[in-house]
Amino acid sequence: MGMVGGGPGAFIGNVHRMAAALDGQIELVCGAFSSDPHKSKEAGESLFLDPKRVYANFEEMILTEKSLPESARMDFVSIVTPNHVHFAPTKLALESGFDVICDKPLSFSTEEAEELVKIVSQSGRLFCLTHNYTGYPMVRQAKAMVKAGELGKIRKVVVEYPQGWLSSFLESSGQKQAGWRTDPTKSGKAGCIGDIGTHAENLAEFITGLEIKELAADLSTFVEGRKLDDDGSVLLRFKGGAKGILFASQISIGDENNIRIRVYGEKGGLEWYQLEPNTLIVKSGDGPNQLYRAGTNHAYLSSESHNAARLPAGHPEGFLEAFANLYKEFAQVLRLRNEGKPFQISFPTVEDGLRGMKFIDAVVLSSEKNSAWVSL
Amino acid sequence: MGMVGGGPGAFIGNVHRMAAALDGQIELVCGAFSSDPHKSKEAGESLFLDPKRVYANFEEMILTEKSLPESARMDFVSIVTPNHVHFAPTKLALESGFDVICDKPLSFSTEEAEELVKIVSQSGRLFCLTHNYTGYPMVRQAKAMVKAGELGKIRKVVVEYPQGWLSSFLESSGQKQAGWRTDPTKSGKAGCIGDIGTHAENLAEFITGLEIKELAADLSTFVEGRKLDDDGSVLLRFKGGAKGILFASQISIGDENNIRIRVYGEKGGLEWYQLEPNTLIVKSGDGPNQLYRAGTNHAYLSSESHNAARLPAGHPEGFLEAFANLYKEFAQVLRLRNEGKPFQISFPTVEDGLRGMKFIDAVVLSSEKNSAWVSL
Amino acid sequence: MGMVGGGPGAFIGNVHRMAAALDGQIELVCGAFSSDPHKSKEAGESLFLDPKRVYANFEEMILTEKSLPESARMDFVSIVTPNHVHFAPTKLALESGFDVICDKPLSFSTEEAEELVKIVSQSGRLFCLTHNYTGYPMVRQAKAMVKAGELGKIRKVVVEYPQGWLSSFLESSGQKQAGWRTDPTKSGKAGCIGDIGTHAENLAEFITGLEIKELAADLSTFVEGRKLDDDGSVLLRFKGGAKGILFASQISIGDENNIRIRVYGEKGGLEWYQLEPNTLIVKSGDGPNQLYRAGTNHAYLSSESHNAARLPAGHPEGFLEAFANLYKEFAQVLRLRNEGKPFQISFPTVEDGLRGMKFIDAVVLSSEKNSAWVSL
Amino acid sequence: MGMVGGGPGAFIGNVHRMAAALDGQIELVCGAFSSDPHKSKEAGESLFLDPKRVYANFEEMILTEKSLPESARMDFVSIVTPNHVHFAPTKLALESGFDVICDKPLSFSTEEAEELVKIVSQSGRLFCLTHNYTGYPMVRQAKAMVKAGELGKIRKVVVEYPQGWLSSFLESSGQKQAGWRTDPTKSGKAGCIGDIGTHAENLAEFITGLEIKELAADLSTFVEGRKLDDDGSVLLRFKGGAKGILFASQISIGDENNIRIRVYGEKGGLEWYQLEPNTLIVKSGDGPNQLYRAGTNHAYLSSESHNAARLPAGHPEGFLEAFANLYKEFAQVLRLRNEGKPFQISFPTVEDGLRGMKFIDAVVLSSEKNSAWVSL
Repeated sequence: MGMVGGGPGAFIGNVHRMAAALDGQIELVCGAFSSDPHKSKEAGESLFLDPKRVYANFEEMILTEKSLPESARMDFVSIVTPNHVHFAPTKLALESGFDVICDKPLSFSTEEAEELVKIVSQSGRLFCLTHNYTGYPMVRQAKAMVKAGELGKIRKVVVEYPQGWLSSFLESSGQKQAGWRTDPTKSGKAGCIGDIGTHAENLAEFITGLEIKELAADLSTFVEGRKLDDDGSVLLRFKGGAKGILFASQISIGDENNIRIRVYGEKGGLEWYQLEPNTLIVKSGDGPNQLYRAGTNHAYLSSESHNAARLPAGHPEGFLEAFANLYKEFAQVLRLRNEGKPFQISFPTVEDGLRGMKFIDAVVLSSEKNSAWVSL
Repeated sequence: MGMVGGGPGAFIGNVHRMAAALDGQIELVCGAFSSDPHKSKEAGESLFLDPKRVYANFEEMILTEKSLPESARMDFVSIVTPNHVHFAPTKLALESGFDVICDKPLSFSTEEAEELVKIVSQSGRLFCLTHNYTGYPMVRQAKAMVKAGELGKIRKVVVEYPQGWLSSFLESSGQKQAGWRTDPTKSGKAGCIGDIGTHAENLAEFITGLEIKELAADLSTFVEGRKLDDDGSVLLRFKGGAKGILFASQISIGDENNIRIRVYGEKGGLEWYQLEPNTLIVKSGDGPNQLYRAGTNHAYLSSESHNAARLPAGHPEGFLEAFANLYKEFAQVLRLRNEGKPFQISFPTVEDGLRGMKFIDAVVLSSEKNSAWVSL
Repeated sequence: MGMVGGGPGAFIGNVHRMAAALDGQIELVCGAFSSDPHKSKEAGESLFLDPKRVYANFEEMILTEKSLPESARMDFVSIVTPNHVHFAPTKLALESGFDVICDKPLSFSTEEAEELVKIVSQSGRLFCLTHNYTGYPMVRQAKAMVKAGELGKIRKVVVEYPQGWLSSFLESSGQKQAGWRTDPTKSGKAGCIGDIGTHAENLAEFITGLEIKELAADLSTFVEGRKLDDDGSVLLRFKGGAKGILFASQISIGDENNIRIRVYGEKGGLEWYQLEPNTLIVKSGDGPNQLYRAGTNHAYLSSESHNAARLPAGHPEGFLEAFANLYKEFAQVLRLRNEGKPFQISFPTVEDGLRGMKFIDAVVLSSEKNSAWVSL
Repeated sequence: MGMVGGGPGAFIGNVHRMAAALDGQIELVCGAFSSDPHKSKEAGESLFLDPKRVYANFEEMILTEKSLPESARMDFVSIVTPNHVHFAPTKLALESGFDVICDKPLSFSTEEAEELVKIVSQSGRLFCLTHNYTGYPMVRQAKAMVKAGELGKIRKVVVEYPQGWLSSFLESSGQKQAGWRTDPTKSGKAGCIGDIGTHAENLAEFITGLEIKELAADLSTFVEGRKLDDDGSVLLRFKGGAKGILFASQISIGDENNIRIRVYGEKGGLEWYQLEPNTLIVKSGDGPNQLYRAGTNHAYLSSESHNAARLPAGHPEGFLEAFANLYKEFAQVLRLRNEGKPFQISFPTVEDGLRGMKFIDAVVLSSEKNSAWVSL
């Protein structure tokens, strides 16, 4: 694997590296870790890379690696840059014949996203978008249970993602993460709703298998001087009649990454909360609520859930393990594809990424139209 | 105290009686417990009442008691009937010189509510509306902390009240509670949003001291054959700039009375959950979240919270104790008023009741207008 | 009901009064609330009692009431004094023909307890010991499940009762509760282990139906100057082969009344925690753990649990409601007995009280013998 | 790193590999994964190892690697075999000049353990024992707080490790993990108390810095046919006067790896629970309990805790991350040592391992002597 981005001061780059390393299936062999060649070098050294394969920029990396013999070149590219630098390296990598795994949201704009869908299709390459919350074993369990009809027809979805870290004007302090995420030239047209609202949207659709038909949104910017939204509340209507509420916030002071989802059907309900990710609360109308627990051992869990766990229940797996599941599955699919074998994709794709961008568009438009319903 | 309603099969009548009895300050002395005189008698007997003071209907009760010498008559009237039978006994009681404590929502319609506001004012009598969740010690604590500025300016409120008991077409089974609550001739123009949505609205305004300026709502009726809404999602905008989300649902299968509120300000946040009512989570941006615990003993709690507790922390107080607080405070205020002493009202009033009715109107109107913003 | 003790500054007297009042079945008609006649009068006034029935001491109360016509006298006596004043009023009340409800532990010494067992038996009166934790609906549920064999043969019991309120030398401050509870002339030979350890012992035997055969204990007094133990750890062996651990502590700083019990059998397990008393965690080896929830409505609960609840699930009932269950059941049994009808006793009795005293003896003896095993 | 053990069907071997891989600091370069050379080969292949460095047994591995040029040989040995195969490879590795990281408990017997202490000392090599629970950020935080005196003098420790997986006679089914852990020829003289009781013992001493002075134990074997204890309860007395309770169980049906510790001092208390490892409950006598949350970001956490976290709060880290911390720290210390720089050891050592073996001896002896106090 070769990496684009993730140099000093980056947050998500290191997450991707640990996620890729965990299962011993993927080796980081090269990278263009920063737009500053000196910083890229530094990063490469600290990662024990061959200095020759630490590149000054992504173009150099992709083109040089492409020129290597097949057995010597990187197998795929991991893109972990801010949103505005997703499109170009993804496009170049795909068109150079490399499979790509990329951080979310897919791109800076919906136009870019639509073009990427085409490029993926034309290239025949594989593309994984790291909506990492889909990698949790109990999220897989939830999806499997909905799919199997255990909840009956879905009626209501409540998905939320409150954070508190942007309660103050942190971007004025030089904090790098706050900086680009609140900067419309890097993040795109949305702040909070793009950064974490898309996770909530993706999680709701991933678990329920339902598509949002239309939405009505009210975005806010509470912190003075901030250039993008830092809070958003959205009413949802799904195809097929289910209703929903989605909210995301970065001014929910004292909250961490409190992404939580509740799904209610005619026959049963589910509740999952990322801060205690190994538990899935399963609800029924008649019996007591049940605590399903992630692990490789419980016979009552689905195979989808078992596959996403590494350890028996009682050995908590967390954020990195869930993230690593996407890498592991991506690597498995690549191997099967390379061996000409059939494969199934369980990770989020470029189409999910396009959907996220359309969600951002719809939320922003609805909010501009004083919360009018906007089709997705 | 004399009671109107609360005969065999009633739910809330018994709650009111236990709440009134708990602190040994109030004695039930008479009642018109049912529109069926026979059932009223039966109820009176089981309550050890003097048969002469068990009446066939509320008119008889109020007029007969009024005719008794002052020292012998009931001190006030408690009204625990379904919504459509709030107005008439309240009006008669007030106009007959009795103070009134009445279950929520205030009335069948906003017109009735507006008239009741006038009647209360003209009568000079005291009126308490049993929005019982306001009686919890930690709700009082939350209100006191917001008022004292400990959270800074409020930015965001999330209040929810999911229940699951009406996930099926229960009203067709003859279940009495389901019957009248889903019947527009008894409940009024709203189902879920009137029955429990008003609790959520009241709790949000009670704690924050903010008024909802406008709202955008999406009501649903998920259960086929049901005549009123059984689920509603509402975006809120408060005067002063805070935003909010309110949702109430009776089809959230597996949920009980999961009323929960989260309040986020510039400096801190609060979270309270009725199923664990003795804990208030207090959040700050810098330090760890704190678990404030209800009780008479903790020096860090406000006097408002201490006053609403009976026992030191570790002796859980619940729903009935919170309900009893309204009765206890009502009795205290009556006593002070009767003694000509100054008093402060800490329980919900007829104005809060009118506000609840206007909230129902606005939600229903907004939903009819496809979630357009409607002023409250 | 007439009350002995519970005057100004008392804690448990008020608890008993609220518990007795809650269900509208019991009326406080007289009392000897303090050994100081003036204070007793004061208490009686604040409780709206007929001044003639507020007595200067328990002898006066019991003898005067006995002399009243049957229809006019109190029905039973409630004794809420410190431990050293349990025996005399209980004996006099029983021998005067009154039924008795008494706070725990039963008496100052085992000798007194043994005599009380005899007196109860000879008097033919009913006696209830307020081990109030047995009144919780989910404790009743737990007992019913064990009895029905749902856990299989019991193997292990862990029962604990950590408190923190005596972490400092509070008795030196004049705090009344701390004063008598740490005073061997009032509390008896044990401090913590008598005050709360007996609750733990009783709860374990109540739920499991097992009897402690022998125990090995290690008592400590951590606070300098304290005259009795403030912490104790006990290994348990039950008749039939189950093992257990019991610990009680009053120096567990930051803990409230964190009484918790876990029971493990061959087929299943149970966990209950008083700070969240409406939930019973039910464990099995195969399926997910389940959250049983107290309430009148859940069909999966036992009748014993239903009978101990007043409200449907979601309306938290607490400490006072559990306490009130003992009063309610005591009153029901009295009524049935008076009507010559058959009755079943579900509340703790004088035999349970004697058992508690023997437990105290055994713990103290074992601790003196450096934790040697001592039979109970 | 070269690995001894961890072939097909092993549980802990894979844990060690993932833990070693996570941070990109350690590479698995060789192994003797099974006593069956064929299985060892298989394992090596699946791990992408050079077939020449997949050895038939640990002797071959250690001696062959030793014969390689320094730059080409493995840096250290990881030993992940059952208890009875800890001693021989550890001894050989140390005496061959390799540093060693080894799973717990240290050895099959105390004699072996004492010899290993000597060998480590004589060899001058580094040795890490993977008492993995010490790797959790909030365990480090707890230790740091105790050390800094924030709790005052420690009075009471309650540490427990209930599991339910051996509630039935699983070893008769051929399940490999159950097989060796209940076999006295592989596990040693203790079952449950050796396998998980030592974790509890180690955790208590690690956090508090206190040493167990003496203990009184009651071991049980509940499952018929089982050859070793499956449950144990232990009273503890620490040097300096603190008291404690330790219990471990493998028949606590429905429990996972519910290791939990509570520490109470004169000024404050702590509670940590492995199933929710990112929270540390911090208790005080006066203020509300606080929820300290693991992460790299919270300024209120100690540097020891920060160093053990990889991500800001809200990104749950789990069992593997804690395990990986020991590997990461071991690698750091090796690097510093190799560079001749000063270093500090934060991971458990061979002395801790010897202490664990003595704990096992004392528990078994005390239990044989009917719970007499035995010095450690």
